Amino acid sequence: MKTKRLSPMDASWLYVESHQTPMHVGGLMTFELPKDAPADFFQQLIADFREHREFHAPWNRRLKSTSLKALAPVWVEDQDLDLDYHLRLSALPWPGGERELGVLIARLHSHPLDFRRPPWECHIIQGLEDDKFALYVKVHHALIDGVSAMRELVRVLSKDPDDGERPPFWAVPREKRPVNAAPVPTTEAAVGQALAAVPKQPGSAPTLIKALVELVKASRRKDDPMGVPFKAPKSLLNGRITGQRRFATQSYSIDRIKKIAKAGDATLNDVVLAVCGGALRRFLKEANALPATSLTAGIPVSVRPKDDQETGNAISFIISTLATDIADPVLRLQAIRASTKRAKEHLQSLPKNVIEGYTMAFMGPYMVQLMTGLGGRTRPVFNITISNVPGPDHALYLRGARMVAHYPVSLITHGQALNITCNGYADTLNFGFIGCRTSLPHMQRIAVYAGEALEELEAAVVKSGREKKARNTA
Amino acid sequence: MKTKRLSPMDASWLYVESHQTPMHVGGLMTFELPKDAPADFFQQLIADFREHREFHAPWNRRLKSTSLKALAPVWVEDQDLDLDYHLRLSALPWPGGERELGVLIARLHSHPLDFRRPPWECHIIQGLEDDKFALYVKVHHALIDGVSAMRELVRVLSKDPDDGERPPFWAVPREKRPVNAAPVPTTEAAVGQALAAVPKQPGSAPTLIKALVELVKASRRKDDPMGVPFKAPKSLLNGRITGQRRFATQSYSIDRIKKIAKAGDATLNDVVLAVCGGALRRFLKEANALPATSLTAGIPVSVRPKDDQETGNAISFIISTLATDIADPVLRLQAIRASTKRAKEHLQSLPKNVIEGYTMAFMGPYMVQLMTGLGGRTRPVFNITISNVPGPDHALYLRGARMVAHYPVSLITHGQALNITCNGYADTLNFGFIGCRTSLPHMQRIAVYAGEALEELEAAVVKSGREKKARNTA
Repeated sequence: MKTKRLSPMDASWLYVESHQTPMHVGGLMTFELPKDAPADFFQQLIADFREHREFHAPWNRRLKSTSLKALAPVWVEDQDLDLDYHLRLSALPWPGGERELGVLIARLHSHPLDFRRPPWECHIIQGLEDDKFALYVKVHHALIDGVSAMRELVRVLSKDPDDGERPPFWAVPREKRPVNAAPVPTTEAAVGQALAAVPKQPGSAPTLIKALVELVKASRRKDDPMGVPFKAPKSLLNGRITGQRRFATQSYSIDRIKKIAKAGDATLNDVVLAVCGGALRRFLKEANALPATSLTAGIPVSVRPKDDQETGNAISFIISTLATDIADPVLRLQAIRASTKRAKEHLQSLPKNVIEGYTMAFMGPYMVQLMTGLGGRTRPVFNITISNVPGPDHALYLRGARMVAHYPVSLITHGQALNITCNGYADTLNFGFIGCRTSLPHMQRIAVYAGEALEELEAAVVKSGREKKARNTA
Repeated sequence: MKTKRLSPMDASWLYVESHQTPMHVGGLMTFELPKDAPADFFQQLIADFREHREFHAPWNRRLKSTSLKALAPVWVEDQDLDLDYHLRLSALPWPGGERELGVLIARLHSHPLDFRRPPWECHIIQGLEDDKFALYVKVHHALIDGVSAMRELVRVLSKDPDDGERPPFWAVPREKRPVNAAPVPTTEAAVGQALAAVPKQPGSAPTLIKALVELVKASRRKDDPMGVPFKAPKSLLNGRITGQRRFATQSYSIDRIKKIAKAGDATLNDVVLAVCGGALRRFLKEANALPATSLTAGIPVSVRPKDDQETGNAISFIISTLATDIADPVLRLQAIRASTKRAKEHLQSLPKNVIEGYTMAFMGPYMVQLMTGLGGRTRPVFNITISNVPGPDHALYLRGARMVAHYPVSLITHGQALNITCNGYADTLNFGFIGCRTSLPHMQRIAVYAGEALEELEAAVVKSGREKKARNTA
């Protein structure tokens, strides 16, 4: 049996796994039936998926020992998978709308994976309104990170509506998969790059913690080049969490967001942050829990170091204000634009080793809190991670069924009770909101308010041209 | 906040809880929509259930500390329940038959309960074929035992199809509930009665184990009055189990079973055992795993002790052969009849204290194995528990929807990978088969074979009269 030792980074996700903080990530893809679909389209799809009983890495990997605190965990490749366990058929109760889908995904995402088997599940979901169906795939972060998982899922889809031959994702040999595109800025990529400097040792989470603590200490001894703003206010997003989740989605036209960005002289990401900031401000205000100073967001970014034009981009983090202390949507966007611009410019002016030190300076404490389970007991480094993951800019099809949307279903941790991630897909930006059921009993509202914050911003910036006027008179 | 210390027996179910052996039990009730049901019958039912936000004991009880190994666990009464967590809406994928229902129940029953909340869930299930729907209720054994839970669920149903007023089970104050009927013979009742002799001490599972070990020792020092047959063969039903379940159902007409019993001069329970024995023989034979000597079943029974006509029946256990070594269905029924008759007669000839000693002599080792997690590593005391729980002999209605069947969804343990329990309801006997997904990959077949074993037995005993002839010539 082929074996593979987990990297320290991968092992750390097992180390952190608990009832309260299951460390799996997911993707939710909705599809519309082709117009000329035969009556048994769905049954055929399932029957065909069930026929693929050959499993390729990483989908055939299970832990050699199910002790999650093992010092050097190892994957073994399992050839004898119980496919009916991993491939599951579910249905939505009537009326099969976004609400019912959100409730089902929240429930499925709350259940821990079975570590006696390769830690993933694929759910085919029937009963969506308007002749739609969904795939929800759930996978442990130790097996594959979220962005790579998304790519694996999307790869088996086709640009061609008439391509009916693609096997399901677990049945595609790795060598037949296209070469990875540029690395996407994510939390893991940022920490991974900074850690690359650490001497290689057998993978174990305690070793990783030690290395992190050392790096954090080292980075703090240096002159702090960034004035890293460890200034996030306490908020109800930053306490201890429990094991149950809530999930909500929103999908917006990229064109709409681009128009706002253009009119506001901001980036697409700035608009995303402004929309999230607007939604969070309203949500916290209604809960009588809006901090006086603004919430901050940690945002993974990709920068080209000043001294290294060769080896490609460095992935690091910036912290931006979410301007939740500002009521006006235009002024909020301006504040965010200024904050991200300053942070990125500064980061880009630094040599590579300083960027690494900087990454560790604020990701280190977060990772250490995560791994020691201490998150949510101390003041947050930032209030929320907001990531934007680029995706294909064209429509994709599964046996002729067009993918309508592709939502990330991320993970949350002690100290970070809410995560907002968005996926680019074709001409849409698809937001997945995942939160702790107990800390955020009305989390659904954040998603609804995001939609309304977008409308408000659009009205102010694009339609009335207020932003432009404000800039011209400034 | 009202608190209540758990009894040692109740606490023991928490002590045993693990990923592999979640200790909850369930009930599955299927209903058919009334013929004149309004289009929104279902939505009205859900809306009405959701309005009942007052919770009565035991449904409002949660553990004060979520440490399941606490020495003296305590319930606190929670008034602020998240009803949307406990009351869940689900749907079956097409075609919504017995198979899809079994898969969903198996999946729901595999997930552990959340011990930060009152440990129960109620699932309303849509999408069953033939205009049916289902309720599946899952509750931790520490909160309420299976038979009491069944009674609680059934109590809120009505004999009257026109009675549309009954609140859901959690909203019925205890004082409004009818007085309990006679205690039903169950494993817990048997051990509970035998344990009543043990001096009362603060509830804790280690204390209970100690008491059990003492009782077992004591009972073994006495002359063994029963020749307790610790002679169960090893079988694939008796190894270690994993956390995932399979579930299947069968419903038979009680009249049919009674006719066989009458023609075979046997009891209804003997016929149930013969049907299970026939199914298990075929299943194990096909798996090339049929032991040479017969499997045995542990059966909770209610007996009137010789020396105690006053305090009512004693609940104990008998072990019966399942005659899996006999191919002929008639001879199998005869062997079972002889085995149960002898065991019951012997038990009834004993004074109360000997019955208690006897109960502990073979339930003790089973309970100790259960509580120490050692089950499945040693030779089984018996191969399977088969219980028959009496129920109402008339049809029941939920707001005009007739209950079609009421299946038990029991628990399994290390050393007991399969449980068969049946509920009497109106003119039917409803079998629930629950098994370990890993040990019994084809468990569904046992249910199918039970149906076929019933047909075979009926043909041989009732239709051909073979059994009667055999007896007359004997």
